[in-house]
Order: sequence, then structure tokens, then C-alpha cells
Amino acid sequence: MSNDVEKKLQKLAIEVVSQIDKKKAPYVEIPQRGLSNVFFDDEERMLKMGDKTSKRSFINIAHTKKFMQTMLVSSYAKQLVENNKHAGIRELYYALKHSIGKGKENTFEDQSESNLIIEDLERMIDVLREQLNLTADRRGFIYGDIEIRDGKDRFNASKLGRGGWAVPGNIEDIEFKKSNVDRILVVETAAMSDRLIEERFPLDNNCLLVACQGQAPRGIRRLLSRLHGEMGLPVVVFTDGDPYGWYIYSTIKQGSINLAYLSNTLSVPDAKFVGMTMDDIETYELQGVTEKLKDMDRKRIEEELKYPWFKHKKWQKQLNKCKKMGVRIEQQALANKSLEFVAQDYLPEKIESRDFLP
Amino acid sequence: MSNDVEKKLQKLAIEVVSQIDKKKAPYVEIPQRGLSNVFFDDEERMLKMGDKTSKRSFINIAHTKKFMQTMLVSSYAKQLVENNKHAGIRELYYALKHSIGKGKENTFEDQSESNLIIEDLERMIDVLREQLNLTADRRGFIYGDIEIRDGKDRFNASKLGRGGWAVPGNIEDIEFKKSNVDRILVVETAAMSDRLIEERFPLDNNCLLVACQGQAPRGIRRLLSRLHGEMGLPVVVFTDGDPYGWYIYSTIKQGSINLAYLSNTLSVPDAKFVGMTMDDIETYELQGVTEKLKDMDRKRIEEELKYPWFKHKKWQKQLNKCKKMGVRIEQQALANKSLEFVAQDYLPEKIESRDFLP
Repeated sequence: MSNDVEKKLQKLAIEVVSQIDKKKAPYVEIPQRGLSNVFFDDEERMLKMGDKTSKRSFINIAHTKKFMQTMLVSSYAKQLVENNKHAGIRELYYALKHSIGKGKENTFEDQSESNLIIEDLERMIDVLREQLNLTADRRGFIYGDIEIRDGKDRFNASKLGRGGWAVPGNIEDIEFKKSNVDRILVVETAAMSDRLIEERFPLDNNCLLVACQGQAPRGIRRLLSRLHGEMGLPVVVFTDGDPYGWYIYSTIKQGSINLAYLSNTLSVPDAKFVGMTMDDIETYELQGVTEKLKDMDRKRIEEELKYPWFKHKKWQKQLNKCKKMGVRIEQQALANKSLEFVAQDYLPEKIESRDFLP
Repeated sequence: MSNDVEKKLQKLAIEVVSQIDKKKAPYVEIPQRGLSNVFFDDEERMLKMGDKTSKRSFINIAHTKKFMQTMLVSSYAKQLVENNKHAGIRELYYALKHSIGKGKENTFEDQSESNLIIEDLERMIDVLREQLNLTADRRGFIYGDIEIRDGKDRFNASKLGRGGWAVPGNIEDIEFKKSNVDRILVVETAAMSDRLIEERFPLDNNCLLVACQGQAPRGIRRLLSRLHGEMGLPVVVFTDGDPYGWYIYSTIKQGSINLAYLSNTLSVPDAKFVGMTMDDIETYELQGVTEKLKDMDRKRIEEELKYPWFKHKKWQKQLNKCKKMGVRIEQQALANKSLEFVAQDYLPEKIESRDFLP
């Protein structure tokens, strides 16, 4: 794998050098970013990148700085891969930031500049940032009967007390050795994960609990995609019943607009949504523990109503119902029934009867 | 322990009942919150609560609702402790939220109301929320050669690959079985923690790495306090060089204003600060990778200059220097030297020569 990545980085450099050797102005070709070059692939059921590209040329004064930055980032990534080292994307920014010659101009003024170039590079040579050994801040943990190998260590993620295994930002090198679970349950909040661990839900129901602690970070998305692909484990997602929770689900399922070029390696199109839904409020009589929508929430609903991947009538129904009822419902509101309710009734009933949203 | 807590909760209830039996208006006595009842104990070097109290009476119309809330929360906590169950503080809010009689009034309108009552209860009976089996959202992980027992599980936090152990919100029940480390290094960011793990810093330098991922959550503070107290491990803190990083350190060291009544069980007054400092910028020639202060940062500096626990001249010097230079410096800016620099030079040199701030 790292060999492939090295070759791709080398190829990029050789092309630029050969342009210079031929006394041509060097340039690179970069797939375009933004919504205009993103489409929802109905067949593969994920967001994909189109085939529009742009030239970034050294002698176009509007491109010169970005061209230089592209070369700096590519060269740094090559060093990382060669030396089998990893760097945070903020470390990369600091490592490459310096003034140019005797001038006051810096290579990078802000991390947002280097982040963009990293995304460009991912697109240009079609590899994950993680495979360039670049890592983002991590978040999230897992708990359940699965054996993992990372370097010399081999451990079972159900034997770590109530803590679970903290998922690193880069999971390219880990191996899944053995699993004794039937499915993966992704949970939005750490607090709900703690509840389910205390209730022995993962162990009693043969599932691997994955706590994403908000919007799923890349480490978690990659983990889910690999677990689903390599171990054939179905993925069920459990979030708050609001436009943010539903978007967390949609990102896990079919990718995000920003990272559409990575959907293949970061998404799980077969993922299902177990809750919370607006219907749950009536079914489980949770009217007393809803929260009022804010303006921001309403705006988000309008946006989601338009996304192709929320076009399914079941999702349109939930979104419209949310708008009409003017409330949201949190996972933890289920504690209003009893602490045990979510683990003994809500989840087992819904999973058993496959009462999922698509 | 849980027996003690049960008794304290029972005593509180018995007092209220006996007031009613005597046909007196029931009330509870609550230590006052806020800066006016907080002082910095020079001897013990931590923030402490004073002895001002207020009465909360059932028949004072301004207190009636809060009195009712206090009884609800106390009774819920008693159930938790009796049944050896834990609840998130948001779960408690949802569990206790309901309308009163046939009216439209709710027991709680917002979680901030129940949070306040929980803090009151901690103060009234002098126990940690965690000992009432109430838990906040968790964050943070540890990595290093220490053996932990949690329930039936026993594991070594250096044998979990690069991930480390995800620290649960409530660590009251875990046991530290064996440790092969000389000190604890608390690290502000997950990314710097990943760097140090990749460089084998914790293993090569016999230290336990504790990643707090921002302001140290209560689970992490309690962990540090217990590790320091029970295993006699010195604590060294490594944050960004800015007023926020320094405040993270000061909270770990001597507690926070809000939770001053808990300083005994949540702080480590012997903790030392290894960096980043304003002096580091010159010593390590990091001028090119500083970030400009924002207005918010400057405001925070002014506040900290006035706190008694930043009165030490070494801290006053750092704060004033920060203000004068107008910049901050991040941990990860050390990558500008090289990725290995922080683990091979910066930390070993400073720790070896005990180049700490107090």
C-alpha cells in the first residue's frame, strides 16, 4: 500500500520535473472541488466526485503560490511515507511554514491553506490522506467483542473495563483478528454509549459499540468502512432525533460533500438508521421531554429536504414532521422511561423488527 | 464508600421529614456558590469553598421550586447509589422532567437547572457527583505502562496499540494494580499525544501519557488526583503556550472557581508546568510559527493576571510577556524543528533540568 502511494507521489514529481526539463511551464491537473463537481451516484448510493479538472500552473501568477504549496505538501508526504512516520495536519502546517527568501511572505499563512492543498493532493493521486500518513485530531472509542492487532499489541475491545478502546486518528495499519459480534451499533453521544455499556447491551446483543462523540471523525468513518468491508458486519446508526443527528448518519452512510472523492473508502452505503425519529416521540410517549427547535435547526431541515440522499419518502416524512412539530428529541430523553429502557426495550425491539430508516 | 453516601443522603431526607413532623416549614442549608464564597488556600495551595451558607425553604415562594428540585435530585441519586447504577447528568434531567399535577409547569425547564441542583447537593453533603453515581460526558485517553482493573477486566494501558485506553466519565470503581512509570505527562491535544506515542516517548521515558483533549474533563481530573495520591506519581502538564493552555494547567493543579468545593478530590497542587512558555519562543527560535493573539486572548490574560494562583512572579512574567509579544505558541509548532524534536529534545531537556513553572 505505502509502496503504491510512494509511486504515485513520485510519478507526480517526475511529471513536473520532465515539464521543466522540456522548458515547459510546469503544472498539475486537479479535480475540481465544490458542489458543481459532486453528484449522488444512485447505483452505488454514495456521493461521488465528477470528472471536471483544473490546471494549476507555476507561471500563472494566480496559481504560483498554490503550485509551490502543492509541491511542498507532496514532498513532505513523500518523506512521511518513506520513513513510515505520521504527522498531524496541523504539524504539517507548522513544519512547512517558513518565510520565503529574504521577503516577508510565508509559504503558508494559515492552516486552512495547507488543509486545502492536502485535499487537492488526495484528489490528484486518489489516495486517502491517512495513506499519506497525515492524520486529523482523533475522537471516539469502541467497545465490544472484537480482537484487534496494532503493531505488537493484540487486545480485545470488550476486556477494557467500561472505558473501551480509544480510536487513533489513523487506523490504516491495524488488523481485525477475530470478532464475535453480529453487527455494529454507532452511537452519537459518549453518554448514551456509557449507558449501553453499563446495561451490558453490546455483550448481551453481540454488537460492537462505536461512539463517535458528535460528527463522526475520519478515523471512525474509516474504521466503520473497513469493519463493514472486511468483516461483513452490518452497520446500524443511533443518533439524536434532529437534523444534526440525521446528518451524522448520512455522512457515515454516503459521505460528505467536502470529501465526496473519498466516499469509496469512507462510507457504508448499506448502513441503516435505528433512531431517534419523530415517530418515536408518539410511539414511546416522549412528548414531555422534547426540546424546541431553534432557527438554526429549521434552516438545517430546509437544506436537508433538498439533498438527493434525503429524497427517500421516509426521510422527507421525518424532516417535514420535525418542521411541523417544531421539536427535536435526544437519545438520552429515553431515560424518562427508565435508565434501562433504551437497552431492554427500545433498541432490541427496533432492531429485532428491523424498524429502520433507509 | 457508597454506604457513606447513602447514609448522607438518608440523613438529609430524615432531617426534612422530621421538620415536617414537627410542623415546621422544611428547609435545607446550602453552602453559597460564587466567587464571594471561594478563596485560595495558601497552605494547601488550592481553591477552597468558604463557610457561608444559605437556607432554601419550602415555604419561601422564591425557593419552593428549587426546594422541590433538590428533593427530586437527592431522591434520584439515592436510587442510583442503592441500585449501583450510574446516570449521565443529562439523563437525570430527562428522567426527572415531568409536568406537575394538571398544570403546565414542569419540574425542570432546562438542564442548567438540574445541573445547579446537583452542584448544590455535592456541596451540601460534601461528596463528589461521581460518588452519587452521576457522570458527565467523557473525553480523553491514557497511554503508558500501568495496569488497571475495572470490574472483571485487567489490562495494561501500554498494550493497546496506538489507541490507548478511553477514560470513562466515572472512574470511582477502577483500581490501579501496578505501574511501571516515573511520572504522568498530561498533554492538551490529541494530536500531540499521537506524536509522542509514535515517538515512543511514554515507553522510553517511563511516563504515563494522559490526553485531556482540551480543558480536562472531570473523569481525567479525578484520575490524575487518584494516580497522584495513590501511586505517588508526580504530574507534569504540557499545553499550548497561551492563556487557555495555562488555565487548563491551573485547573488541574488547584481546581476551578465553579467547583472549588471539590478541590480536595479533583486537584493536584504539586503539579508542575513544562510548557509551552513565552520563553520557549526565543529559546527554540519559534518566532516564525507563532499565532497572533485575538481580543479574546488579551481579555483572558488580564483576568489571569489578577487570579491569586497566577500571582507567582514567574507566571506574571509569562502573562505579561504574552501580552507584550502579542502572540501565542502551540505545542504542535514544535514540528517546525522536526517531528522528533518534541520527544527527543524539548521534553527530555526540560524534564531532566526540571525547567518547570510552579
